[in-house]
Amino acid sequence: MIRRLAIVGVGLLGGSVAKAARAHGLGAEIVGIGRDAGRLQAARRDGALDHVTTDLAEGLRDADLVVLASPVGVIVTLLDEVAHAGGPETIVTDVGSTKAAIVRAAERLGRTRPLRFVGSHPMAGSEQSGYGHARADLFRGATVIVTPTEMSEPAAVKTVSAFWETLGAGRVVTLDPDAHDRAVAAISHLPHLVAMALVDAVDRFEPSAFDIAARGFRDTTRIAASDPIVWEEIFVANRDALGRSLVAFREVLAELECLIAAGDAAAVRAAIARIKARREALP
Amino acid sequence: MIRRLAIVGVGLLGGSVAKAARAHGLGAEIVGIGRDAGRLQAARRDGALDHVTTDLAEGLRDADLVVLASPVGVIVTLLDEVAHAGGPETIVTDVGSTKAAIVRAAERLGRTRPLRFVGSHPMAGSEQSGYGHARADLFRGATVIVTPTEMSEPAAVKTVSAFWETLGAGRVVTLDPDAHDRAVAAISHLPHLVAMALVDAVDRFEPSAFDIAARGFRDTTRIAASDPIVWEEIFVANRDALGRSLVAFREVLAELECLIAAGDAAAVRAAIARIKARREALP
Repeated sequence: MIRRLAIVGVGLLGGSVAKAARAHGLGAEIVGIGRDAGRLQAARRDGALDHVTTDLAEGLRDADLVVLASPVGVIVTLLDEVAHAGGPETIVTDVGSTKAAIVRAAERLGRTRPLRFVGSHPMAGSEQSGYGHARADLFRGATVIVTPTEMSEPAAVKTVSAFWETLGAGRVVTLDPDAHDRAVAAISHLPHLVAMALVDAVDRFEPSAFDIAARGFRDTTRIAASDPIVWEEIFVANRDALGRSLVAFREVLAELECLIAAGDAAAVRAAIARIKARREALP
Repeated sequence: MIRRLAIVGVGLLGGSVAKAARAHGLGAEIVGIGRDAGRLQAARRDGALDHVTTDLAEGLRDADLVVLASPVGVIVTLLDEVAHAGGPETIVTDVGSTKAAIVRAAERLGRTRPLRFVGSHPMAGSEQSGYGHARADLFRGATVIVTPTEMSEPAAVKTVSAFWETLGAGRVVTLDPDAHDRAVAAISHLPHLVAMALVDAVDRFEPSAFDIAARGFRDTTRIAASDPIVWEEIFVANRDALGRSLVAFREVLAELECLIAAGDAAAVRAAIARIKARREALP
């Protein structure tokens, strides 16, 4: 039973958690905590938040569930204060796009004081950012990954999983934090970096070509317009797994280029057909 | 005045030309020419074509405008027969995604017999293929590139440009065939190859990650499901410009990776911000 829900960071994801919780009648009291009082007030005025504060300790007092929705690097630095401010029953989760660093930091803290932490990563979002783009249905049908470890309390894992289901998640998947970081490096971080490199490559190679961009280029590079602060932190936090995924990417790109340069029509066709089938088999 | 419009290759693009011409009252008689009589009859039954034939010479007889809508490699091989079959007044264009090879082949032929050819490339399409996906509004608002040279007859250029405008093009841009191939290498062929490499890289690095793919991955790799025959021919036909665009792509990707690996947060953030601004400035 979540009576008091505290959300730290009321941007696209934190704001959407607030709106979705309100829409699903979850949390009798929803508290928003942030650094910018003006932005918090704007979020309070539209009804998704009952209270707002820039004081973390005040905002977390008596919270049943805390959702950390700041950028990845900030979440790690907040954990110590969160452990002090929450009560012994407070369950803490987050929405960070990388999990190993956050979960490790939480478990280090958990050795010295109570911290009922379970990492989460809702695979929802947008290239847009800020509370202005928050939506009550952002998590509807989304996959949410929760990343418990052997130190996690089963009741907390259950509460966090049920929380996402109530907010509309299509399914909640459990992954080990390192397996999570490797999987999202492949399916999210690598595509973001590659989309950004594509835009930059056109800018360097033939900037006049932007003028004739069609839907293919627009779709392929939509995520290249993602938030610089959010994505700098994700890339740096997950640079090891991202680097390994880039090795695979470079390999397959070089192999495809070789076949094309050699004019090996049959092999190029077979490679495209294989990739097309893989893409069409996406769940 | 186009009375008889002949379309060679009645797939996604050729079929859409037929449907758009019909919808805009263009061409009193629309003839579809292809290799598969069964598929041609299906296209004829839905009203977009008045006549269908597998005989190129018969189909081109007395045509005012011929649109070659076969894959790029096939178009080059058809030009000789088209030059023989069409009358002296017949204007010929195409919808091929690369232009230098086609235009060069047409101009070689034009030295020995009349061939009023002007290359076209409508920047519209889809990862789907075949007449079943053809749409009368495929060209609505699209950019169409026409690629005349100093050998092109001004009246033919005017007819072809007006043809695309009538079919709904948002604008018709004129480019030299080599400039065209360089621009589309950057804005279309490179993104297709990179999207395909992304799917293949995930498959090699962490195939279980497909299971948690969200909208970002889907959009970024939509064009990785493109037609193998069409894209093998495009890649091979434009491999020189594509190879040069890949050099730029590898450079910027390596530079971004370096900044991330070094943990240079400020530089990563600045690079993403610059790329985001470029992407958002797309016309």
